[in-house]
Order: sequence, then C-alpha cells, then structure tokens
Amino acid sequence: MIVHSFGSASSSPIAAVFSAALLLFYFSDTILGAPCPINGLPILRNISDLPQDSYGRPGLSHMNIAGSVLHGMKELEIWLQTFAPGSETPIHRHSCEEVFVVLKGNGTLYLAETHGNFPGKPIEFPIFANSTLHIPINDAHQVKNTGHDDLQVLVIISRPPIKVFTYDDWFMPHTAARLKFPYYWDEQCLQESQKDEL
Amino acid sequence: MIVHSFGSASSSPIAAVFSAALLLFYFSDTILGAPCPINGLPILRNISDLPQDSYGRPGLSHMNIAGSVLHGMKELEIWLQTFAPGSETPIHRHSCEEVFVVLKGNGTLYLAETHGNFPGKPIEFPIFANSTLHIPINDAHQVKNTGHDDLQVLVIISRPPIKVFTYDDWFMPHTAARLKFPYYWDEQCLQESQKDEL
Repeated sequence: MIVHSFGSASSSPIAAVFSAALLLFYFSDTILGAPCPINGLPILRNISDLPQDSYGRPGLSHMNIAGSVLHGMKELEIWLQTFAPGSETPIHRHSCEEVFVVLKGNGTLYLAETHGNFPGKPIEFPIFANSTLHIPINDAHQVKNTGHDDLQVLVIISRPPIKVFTYDDWFMPHTAARLKFPYYWDEQCLQESQKDEL
Repeated sequence: MIVHSFGSASSSPIAAVFSAALLLFYFSDTILGAPCPINGLPILRNISDLPQDSYGRPGLSHMNIAGSVLHGMKELEIWLQTFAPGSETPIHRHSCEEVFVVLKGNGTLYLAETHGNFPGKPIEFPIFANSTLHIPINDAHQVKNTGHDDLQVLVIISRPPIKVFTYDDWFMPHTAARLKFPYYWDEQCLQESQKDEL
C-alpha cells in the first residue's frame, strides 16, 4: 500500500493518524499548554502556549510564567496579567517585594502609604506602557485598567507563596482584612501534586 | 513688568528662566535618569528614562529596572538587557533563581546541565521573542544573540546581590572559575551611598 511510504512506524492510515494525534497530545500536554506540568519544568517555554485563566475575576487573564507549585519556584514568581478596560485587582497588601513592568495599555495604581488602623485614601499613579512600579512592603494597593485598551503587566513577587490581606474598601480596618495564605494561583496543581504523592 | 504675570515666584525674566532650569535639573536628576537616586525610589518610573550602561561589555546595554543598591531591593532584582547581534554574556553560574522573559529578537541559551568537575558541553536552546526560560540553580549558562537584530530580555533574579562564578570556556574546572561576590550592577551607587554615611 502506498501509505507505507509515509514511515515505518505507521502500518496503516489509521495508525498514522493515531500516531500523529498521540504526538500532538504529548506536545500539548507536556510542553505547550498543560495546566499542571508537574513532572519537570521545561527550560524554555513559549509564553503564547502557556495556560491562562480568569480565576473567577471579571476581565482578568492570568498566566503563570514562573510559579511556585507549577514550576517549583522557591524565591520568586512571575505572572503575566491582562486586565480588560474597567477591571482591577482587589485592594490588598502583602509583605513580599513586588514590581510591575507595564507592557501594554494604561491604568492607575492606587497606593495607600499610610500605616494607621486602615489603608486610607490612596495616592493615584497613572501607569503606562514601558513604565515600572514597585509596591512598598505592606502598603495596600490596587491596579485598575482605567484606559480604553487592555492593560498588560508583568508582575514579579518574591518569596512565594504570598500571604495576602484583602480589603473591601480603603477604610476597612486592617483587623477586618481577609487573609489568604498560602495564595497559590496554581492551587489546582498543588492538589494534583499531593494526590500523586499519596 | 509683564513678566510678573507669569507667576509670583518669578520676579524677573532671569529668575523665571533660572526657576525653570532648576525644575528641569530637579526632575532630570531625581526622577528621570540619575545614575544613583539613593535618596528614595520613586514608586513609578518610565523605563525609557532609566540610565543604561554597557559595563565595558561590547554590545551590551544593561538597565536596572529594580536593583539592590540603586533601589533598595532585598529579595529580587530585575534587569532589562539588550544584546547587539553577536554579543553574549560570559559563561557563568550562580545559586539564585533566574528567569528570562524574551521581549525582542532571537538568540541561543547554552546550558551545561552536567555537574562534574567542569561545566561540559552545553545544550543549545533557541530563544525567541515571547519565550521564557529559567536557569536551574548552579548550572553554568551563557546567552548569546545569534540573530540579526537586537536581543532584548528581562532578567529576574532572586536574593541579590548575586554571587557569580565565571568560566573562560565550558571545560574550565569549577575550581578555576572566577568568583565575584557581591556582584552589583549598581556598584557605583554603593560607593556613593557609603561615602554619604561616613
């Protein structure tokens, strides 16, 4: 049969298609876009192929470029986040170092530098493509896309997983802030990883 | 005199020009492009205005987006590095976490994963815009612009300042590697800072 000339591994057209599908599955699951590639982190990855999720937040697309559970990072994490116009982070604070590098779009950083019983009225910083900002440790802050196009930022934090306190508003007492620790974007992978170890 | 209508702070045209020059000096020195803004880090900075230097390396443009001495970072550093075609990093290794995010261009990552008495023949990874790569701790590596255009990367490392071992070639024994610690890109600012404290 003429199909034999395609390659020695394919003994029939069905086997050839099956092999191709298996290869595609292997690449898509192991390298390109698996949610939890816990069996080793490839050295090199195409960011376009990484999985993304909104994590239930309207207007958010979050991608773990280097994550603590997903990639075994112990000292830093890197996220690529895209905010649709009008979308925003919660008002929150944490005790790790955090730096933003703005890749696209415009927005506003709200930062409460006061250290009273509550965050207080924030200072507003207009953020823009090719700007960088750092968040002083434990200062409550919020990033909002106040522009007309997507706002895309690289977020770099130290000492994952982060310990986050979130606030409903800028005048909510620190004692009422909700604590989430450990905060994993890749929590799903932590569970899968733990199951594997049982 | 008509110049009085410009503002109450300017009592003459000369004073007005002087005030404007002073304001320009203040902004250029404190916010825009001072090599060592050690008197506090602005929350927001325009990356286009940050100082850059080759540090004596042909084809390199290095910019500290967030640096340990320059910006007081204690847990992470972020660099923006641009390599002209043909230029490269030294062959080196370090014990901190390191992640690259490639913004522009093409190049090659050379990575020696072996842990014998010397790095050994490296594996080659083609790197490209929108790719990300992580360097396993203590693996000797080198990044080279093997393309035809500039290669631009964001480099993120943990626990600054880094402790770097450099090699002349891939077969140089680990015991002969040159150690530099602490490795500060913003060493000049460290010296200025220390002088201020005397």
